[in-house]
Amino acid sequence: MTRVFCSMLGRCLVLACAVALAGLDVAAAAAPAVDQHLAELAHFGANPEGGVSRVAFSDADAAGRKYVRGLMEAAGLTVRVDAAGNLIGRREGGDPKLPAIVVGSHTDSVPHGGNYDGDVGVMGAIEVAQQLRDRHVQLRHPLEIVDFTDEEGGLVGSRAMAEGLEPASLDLVNASGHSVRDGLRVIGGDPDAITTARRHSGEIAAYLELHIEQGGVLERTHTDIGIVEGIVGIHWWEATVSGVANHAGTTPMDQRHDALLAASELVLAVNAAATGLPGRQVATVGRIRAEPGAPNVIPGKVVLSVEVRDLDAARIDAVFQRIRARAAEIAQARGVTIEFKDLEATATPALTEPRIQRVIADAARQLKLTSMVMPSGAGHDAQDIARIAPIGMIFVPSIGGISHSPREYTKPDDIANGVSVLLRTVQAIDAGVLEH
Amino acid sequence: MTRVFCSMLGRCLVLACAVALAGLDVAAAAAPAVDQHLAELAHFGANPEGGVSRVAFSDADAAGRKYVRGLMEAAGLTVRVDAAGNLIGRREGGDPKLPAIVVGSHTDSVPHGGNYDGDVGVMGAIEVAQQLRDRHVQLRHPLEIVDFTDEEGGLVGSRAMAEGLEPASLDLVNASGHSVRDGLRVIGGDPDAITTARRHSGEIAAYLELHIEQGGVLERTHTDIGIVEGIVGIHWWEATVSGVANHAGTTPMDQRHDALLAASELVLAVNAAATGLPGRQVATVGRIRAEPGAPNVIPGKVVLSVEVRDLDAARIDAVFQRIRARAAEIAQARGVTIEFKDLEATATPALTEPRIQRVIADAARQLKLTSMVMPSGAGHDAQDIARIAPIGMIFVPSIGGISHSPREYTKPDDIANGVSVLLRTVQAIDAGVLEH
Repeated sequence: MTRVFCSMLGRCLVLACAVALAGLDVAAAAAPAVDQHLAELAHFGANPEGGVSRVAFSDADAAGRKYVRGLMEAAGLTVRVDAAGNLIGRREGGDPKLPAIVVGSHTDSVPHGGNYDGDVGVMGAIEVAQQLRDRHVQLRHPLEIVDFTDEEGGLVGSRAMAEGLEPASLDLVNASGHSVRDGLRVIGGDPDAITTARRHSGEIAAYLELHIEQGGVLERTHTDIGIVEGIVGIHWWEATVSGVANHAGTTPMDQRHDALLAASELVLAVNAAATGLPGRQVATVGRIRAEPGAPNVIPGKVVLSVEVRDLDAARIDAVFQRIRARAAEIAQARGVTIEFKDLEATATPALTEPRIQRVIADAARQLKLTSMVMPSGAGHDAQDIARIAPIGMIFVPSIGGISHSPREYTKPDDIANGVSVLLRTVQAIDAGVLEH
Repeated sequence: MTRVFCSMLGRCLVLACAVALAGLDVAAAAAPAVDQHLAELAHFGANPEGGVSRVAFSDADAAGRKYVRGLMEAAGLTVRVDAAGNLIGRREGGDPKLPAIVVGSHTDSVPHGGNYDGDVGVMGAIEVAQQLRDRHVQLRHPLEIVDFTDEEGGLVGSRAMAEGLEPASLDLVNASGHSVRDGLRVIGGDPDAITTARRHSGEIAAYLELHIEQGGVLERTHTDIGIVEGIVGIHWWEATVSGVANHAGTTPMDQRHDALLAASELVLAVNAAATGLPGRQVATVGRIRAEPGAPNVIPGKVVLSVEVRDLDAARIDAVFQRIRARAAEIAQARGVTIEFKDLEATATPALTEPRIQRVIADAARQLKLTSMVMPSGAGHDAQDIARIAPIGMIFVPSIGGISHSPREYTKPDDIANGVSVLLRTVQAIDAGVLEH
């Protein structure tokens, strides 16, 4: 009750109030609830390997969202589904003029995925609402918990919310076999009214997302909490190396225009372009195809993917320029051509709000948790919402750095730590740290 | 008539007789006939691109062989089909105790093949018989012209003749959809009597084969005739590079065990292993597969083919040892494993008879043709027959080095040159050059 009273006071008292609330810690109380909810959610689309295949718009996804809706309602939230299928549970705030603090993630999975990617963020957000309800804490801001639509298929729900979906995006078919258009109807959305899902700058006070790291840095460095400084931009290219296919027996070594030799040098050049600059940019060739692809034919053509990620779009470009320069040298030396095609699957870097980073760091310190600032190498719904609101992201350790796999795992204690930090961050934002 | 008389004389006069025959040149007379026969043969299995798809045992192959049989009969040959489906036209010699001089090649093609690989050798061999008949030349040795069965499917006919076919080989299904067993019946063979197709050492005086080069060396060096010094041995391995698949966004560059980076170094090492030794050995990676093969996943596994060819089996082994040593270094440096699996599709080197090489060189010189000694990087029926008889091979230029393609082409003049050299070589062997 002290806290409810406290939160009703005017702006000048808010920070003192936040300090008073700083002792609120869900670790002990929340961990069993979140664990149980994660375990129950795991039934929807469970696969034999112990993970889930809960692809957006599948029956498992629809059933999982129904379960999530029940948890939201139990936490006292008023639930609606927007036209983009986003499941939104809302709790009104004390000041009707303030925009909502939004906390979210997603519960759809990749095919043969695990039980933590996305799920931890949604279950953690609901637990925050549950804790506030249980402790009768009235926030000044409305609080919205969002289970976004089809994150794995291209951040569909958050894109619809932050910038709108092109008609072409509605026609894309995801791994469920449904087009986005038809899939939205499966989960209660309305593709014909998709523009109504849009929200604009000023409508959201802040967006927060708790997520597993999906990498091995926190575990390896024995760090409890990752303070995400930004979500990297992703740029994809398709490189085509064209040489001359020829008989592998009758063509002397010095008469070859072997596309695979050139492509191999290019793969190494992509790596060197990223490692040769200071910074944490990453560059990867994940896909390669040699044609005609017979052991006794010199490859005449090789097509490969090039991906570069960084928090800084200019650095992504710098890495690509290094790749392209080296490719020109390789092409000349090998007597082949190398062409790059820009692929559409790109994402621009999205930086988190520095003041939210500081709040997360403070919360971790108060909870005696170790923390580190780090980029998110993976994409998240937060990167879309960053277009219309300040964002913050909290990472918890992924065991072995494994993700998008049934072997994905995060310890219950780490999840509880993340939820505790998330709760304190919500409270600090509600108390006004972004308003100065 | 002079020549007929000459050939009836005793051994001591034979060489003088060969010299008298040396003026025999088919270039003027034969070229139109061979061209016409090649054009007519091209109708059987003609494809829209201008080549043929005359896979062994197909209807086109059966029809083509019927056409070839007609040409053999028109050239005065007595034709039979052995149990292995080999089409054999025979002309008796003057000395019933002497083994046959055999001249052959094949008329089956790869799917979407061209009109020269194999065809030139069979049409050229028939022209030799035709010329001898037209000029009333009686050889001492019997002459046999052979159109071998299913060369492209693994030298089926020549293997049956030289070493016999395993039952498992009869069960293999080729690109026609027929098993070898059933396919042999389509072209008049008898799989149940396959052992009767075998011939043994001493039964064949010499085997000669005229063939397109299938490489670009003769054309590039403006050389008319290739004197094949041997048919290379072929050794295939499958290399498996095992690293760790991981998220391409969340895994720092220095934490990766990228199988494709190691595989790229291995591809370059295969090349360097061949080019780093003196000699004409060739080594090729023609097939590569990265798993899981997504642009945003670091490859955890790469499987690639390694092929090494040379005339000397010891050199093939030396190249492979260099590859394996380098692979061990790469594996250690990259934190991956690299394993090599021996594939069964191997062929041992087959050397041609040096005295036949000299005869071919002499014939070319007499005809004022340029010639060069060279390996055959491709496999041929001759490599099987080498197990039971001295062999010789004559190459003519392939334009652009293109083979196994509708774009395969050899100029009529080059074919005529090859037939002229072949005819002189037959005569020289008949005259006794191998008997000293």
